[in-house]
Amino acid sequence: MYDVCVQLLQDRGVKLEDIAECAIMLQKDYFPDLRMENVLQDVKQVVAKREVQHAIITGINLDIMAEQGKLPSKELEDILMDDYSLYGVDEVLAYGICNIYGSIALTNYGYIDRVKPGIIAFLNNHEGPQCNTFLDDIVGAIAASAASRIAHGKEKGDNGEK
Amino acid sequence: MYDVCVQLLQDRGVKLEDIAECAIMLQKDYFPDLRMENVLQDVKQVVAKREVQHAIITGINLDIMAEQGKLPSKELEDILMDDYSLYGVDEVLAYGICNIYGSIALTNYGYIDRVKPGIIAFLNNHEGPQCNTFLDDIVGAIAASAASRIAHGKEKGDNGEK
Amino acid sequence: MYDVCVQLLQDRGVKLEDIAECAIMLQKDYFPDLRMENVLQDVKQVVAKREVQHAIITGINLDIMAEQGKLPSKELEDILMDDYSLYGVDEVLAYGICNIYGSIALTNYGYIDRVKPGIIAFLNNHEGPQCNTFLDDIVGAIAASAASRIAHGKEKGDNGEK
Amino acid sequence: MYDVCVQLLQDRGVKLEDIAECAIMLQKDYFPDLRMENVLQDVKQVVAKREVQHAIITGINLDIMAEQGKLPSKELEDILMDDYSLYGVDEVLAYGICNIYGSIALTNYGYIDRVKPGIIAFLNNHEGPQCNTFLDDIVGAIAASAASRIAHGKEKGDNGEK
Repeated sequence: MYDVCVQLLQDRGVKLEDIAECAIMLQKDYFPDLRMENVLQDVKQVVAKREVQHAIITGINLDIMAEQGKLPSKELEDILMDDYSLYGVDEVLAYGICNIYGSIALTNYGYIDRVKPGIIAFLNNHEGPQCNTFLDDIVGAIAASAASRIAHGKEKGDNGEK
Repeated sequence: MYDVCVQLLQDRGVKLEDIAECAIMLQKDYFPDLRMENVLQDVKQVVAKREVQHAIITGINLDIMAEQGKLPSKELEDILMDDYSLYGVDEVLAYGICNIYGSIALTNYGYIDRVKPGIIAFLNNHEGPQCNTFLDDIVGAIAASAASRIAHGKEKGDNGEK
Repeated sequence: MYDVCVQLLQDRGVKLEDIAECAIMLQKDYFPDLRMENVLQDVKQVVAKREVQHAIITGINLDIMAEQGKLPSKELEDILMDDYSLYGVDEVLAYGICNIYGSIALTNYGYIDRVKPGIIAFLNNHEGPQCNTFLDDIVGAIAASAASRIAHGKEKGDNGEK
Repeated sequence: MYDVCVQLLQDRGVKLEDIAECAIMLQKDYFPDLRMENVLQDVKQVVAKREVQHAIITGINLDIMAEQGKLPSKELEDILMDDYSLYGVDEVLAYGICNIYGSIALTNYGYIDRVKPGIIAFLNNHEGPQCNTFLDDIVGAIAASAASRIAHGKEKGDNGEK
């Protein structure tokens, strides 16, 4: 399932390195010496979690169904194709990811959702037929969760357990 | 959108009265005199909330796509058709509904998800091709939210605002 | 209880107008014509919610006990007096407020927690004996919730119910 | 901090074995062969989490302050001493614990909060001056989180990461 998710992300235009860059952006004020290779490990650990994988596959499947016009409800298709600002299920799925990584992940997600760095801005402004309504929130949630892993790990040399 | 959601629920075998019965079950130990006509109003108020409508339409669309074999990812189809117990996204969507109605809704949802009264047991044990992976959790979340409205309303004569 | 909460906030240095200013900051890119008198009504509606009041009184009581050195556990006193960045319970309480106002409130809270506008920066940088560990998060959560009310209300002429 | 929390729980009348018994009760329908020594390890892993420890110490400190009559706000003291049913901050703290362990923890918590097995009923019905408003919810949340660890671990031979 891990490989399925990494492939799905890549097919939609997101490499794990892109997510790691967002995580570095989120934490660089606190830890200026973060190295891509280490942060990439944090991103991979997040994507290795079962609940994260389920959110990834569900969200991206909804995006794909919307852009292919195959959703049973035309109302939902319109919402997803327009990325309607008061549609909150994409954020609910993102919070399902962040909750596992605690309150630091949640605040980082809220921040990243607003400032839209790097790949997230790219996904959000994407012209063309691809629907990224869920994808940008999922990417933000994975980056925020990796950032939480960094913050907890730097403090105690581990990931919150001792 | 309200009518679309009520119709979708009905097409999948759920009447608002079925949900009201679950809400009455949840609260009857505390308020033995609950009347269907009043509780039905609470259920309708919950379904009138925009975030609830978005959860309903999204979850049911996923159920339908799964049973029609139209999901892009075969792995997700298998998860949804089997109602895989560690999937979790169905509960995440349900929590997105309950959160709006506070902690009483959340605990009631956890309880109803376990004891599966009335329509929820029916949906869960349903034989045949219909996929109810999201539907039973959504119905439980609406019932739990209506129960929270009842609990708050009985206490203060309103719904938590004063 | 509403009056108790408004008084508690004021005793700790926060006027409802300060919170309204944060809410305006959060929404001014989307709604440049927001007026203080209207936003203040949204803030008051948030503070009128029972679950919000309980979070306010609980958080501020913890802040006061910490600064008075009366907490039973010295370890908790140290955490609160230092505003230890990995503590997290202050954010959990804040999310308890935001959840009631949906995903827009949650993302706005994450953003405000990071950029710390107006009164929140003041509380956070406050020199002197006052402990604001819970207060700044509570203020941020109320502002984010008011911002969510604005976003939903502007769209539909109400607060998410129709 | 781990030892501080275990001691605090014990001082308030809760042994880790009591929590393990609740976790076994929650999972025995699915895994009838659970052994106390293994489940106790799951409970210890939950209590070893930093965010869990912060919730434990904060909740129990509030209980103690309430029963000692030292809370600054008399209104909060009354709420905590009466275990007022619409006070939801205790559940919010409990959810802060459960969220880390995913949706299975959340539904198990909702269930345990309602059926109140073993130590939780004891805490809830406790006569005498001790205030257990936060304690019973914290104990339920730890048991539900341990139950989630069991469910995930039994399925894949690990705790949700692969």
